[in-house]
Amino acid sequence: MSFDLPPASFLAAQQRIAPYVRRTPLLPRPRLHGDSFPHAHLKLENLQVGGSFKARGVFNHLLQLNEEQRRRGVITASGGNHGVALAYAAHCLNIPAMVYLPTRASADRVARIAAWGARIFKHGRDWDDANLKALEHAAQENLYYVHAFDAEATLAGQGTLGLELLEDLPELDCALIAIGGGGLICGAAAAIKQCKPEVRIIGVEPFGAPSMSVSMNANRVTPLLETRTIADTLAPRSVSERTLALAQRYIDEIVLVEEARLVEAMRWLWRECNQLVEPAGAAVIAALLQDETKIARFKQPVAVICGGNAAAESVFADYQNAVR
Amino acid sequence: MSFDLPPASFLAAQQRIAPYVRRTPLLPRPRLHGDSFPHAHLKLENLQVGGSFKARGVFNHLLQLNEEQRRRGVITASGGNHGVALAYAAHCLNIPAMVYLPTRASADRVARIAAWGARIFKHGRDWDDANLKALEHAAQENLYYVHAFDAEATLAGQGTLGLELLEDLPELDCALIAIGGGGLICGAAAAIKQCKPEVRIIGVEPFGAPSMSVSMNANRVTPLLETRTIADTLAPRSVSERTLALAQRYIDEIVLVEEARLVEAMRWLWRECNQLVEPAGAAVIAALLQDETKIARFKQPVAVICGGNAAAESVFADYQNAVR
Repeated sequence: MSFDLPPASFLAAQQRIAPYVRRTPLLPRPRLHGDSFPHAHLKLENLQVGGSFKARGVFNHLLQLNEEQRRRGVITASGGNHGVALAYAAHCLNIPAMVYLPTRASADRVARIAAWGARIFKHGRDWDDANLKALEHAAQENLYYVHAFDAEATLAGQGTLGLELLEDLPELDCALIAIGGGGLICGAAAAIKQCKPEVRIIGVEPFGAPSMSVSMNANRVTPLLETRTIADTLAPRSVSERTLALAQRYIDEIVLVEEARLVEAMRWLWRECNQLVEPAGAAVIAALLQDETKIARFKQPVAVICGGNAAAESVFADYQNAVR
Repeated sequence: MSFDLPPASFLAAQQRIAPYVRRTPLLPRPRLHGDSFPHAHLKLENLQVGGSFKARGVFNHLLQLNEEQRRRGVITASGGNHGVALAYAAHCLNIPAMVYLPTRASADRVARIAAWGARIFKHGRDWDDANLKALEHAAQENLYYVHAFDAEATLAGQGTLGLELLEDLPELDCALIAIGGGGLICGAAAAIKQCKPEVRIIGVEPFGAPSMSVSMNANRVTPLLETRTIADTLAPRSVSERTLALAQRYIDEIVLVEEARLVEAMRWLWRECNQLVEPAGAAVIAALLQDETKIARFKQPVAVICGGNAAAESVFADYQNAVR
């Protein structure tokens, strides 16, 4: 499949969504003793509305709907974060929303989606299972379906993060971005490479969910039989034709990270930057800690902390108990 | 006691510490449904190095020491965050450091201080007890003592946050700031009011540790018999002559917040902004949630999220267990 997104689509998306999303901070790291990557910057996309980059693609969809579509409502399937973003955006724009989740979606994310007033359905073990059911439901009730990664409006919306990185740091020479279905990395890479082709784009996948690596190596979309990772939002079994086509054109390399490194990376982000993020959000740090990306090659690298919706209830329960 | 800090002291501190501290982001809030303070900005000082504003005052001290003082080392007493900042700054500048903590200091903060290589001593229930012991130790070994709030260099350093708020948001008309010993609010208020006297400065204290309110009402430094709050870094039993003098001149009002509201505010910050912070860092949000500050009076108010060092180990332990 040949598929590309022209630079104009990212600029249009950026203008469209600007009033609704946050320009997230780019954090220079403090220099630490015996530090192997003191020059890396962190893009704190966990501070985005809804807690992840997903709000970018979702608003880009919803703001293009006509009156009839808005009235009927929107539907999606999500590993969690896309559902939070859809629920939030639908709430802001006063559109009814339904979200299908795999049964293993975290309680924390389910609560966030419910808090914004979306209807929740649980189905299947993985995102892919929930997605089939959501598509069926959309067809039955003629609802607008917002794909989590395989749609032009989604990809153009996520790509606005790429434009923002170039604005934040014009000397950018490397971007590390985690891969789930590939929406973020493919959108951002397409936006960046068409402006500045020499920026190196490094993807990060868990060893337990290497859907993009496997498809790139096979040179065609190749679904995994199963995925196993605590980074549940990086765990669709398959990428799409569109994201694979963009990945083949714009991703320079992919690093695989171990599960234990994900937790280590979460602890690192908490200790160094006081940011509590979900495993997927820390995946790029796990790659840096493994040093597989040999980050010292680059002068102005950015690691994108793509999402923050960790399961944090235990912390609040502890403090609540201390009050009683 | 008459005490004041001239504007030049803040500017000098700002230049001195700039290479070592972070310019923390000012976060515009997203607009929410039924929202009573959509126009408030949040200053995320929990993203400061060391996880709180304390790094500002500490670097302002340490960067003014002579060779002999640096060689001998520095010492302090801390409810936790000041100790983390001292340990971090001493590590960066290669200065030996010792930190006295009250026995109830959180395990999380103790670990952070130890990670930066400072020696730790525990003494007494409250900061005030640890402080007496630390002063004794400093005198015995002729070590430079870095007071957590009652020192000109500390106050000038913390005041740089006030300058930064005015730079971030020139139309600033109200700043909400939590009060422990008063170092942050008094430094920042002195910096702000001498530039722009019409900005309203609102302090926030827990009902269980109202040391500044009690002293302001009594018109003299009046130690409490005990303090009881989960916001342990806001819990010294007494403010100082210097901070009281500044508070009387520059603080317009103080709001007291309940313990249960502190946990509610922590949850709010997590849900709305994906920021996990300690109870002290959420105190200003508790005040907004109580609506006692009637924030709608102001056009461009900022709530300062002063620190983020929450006890988060339970979250990492949960994820670690999921990996095994």
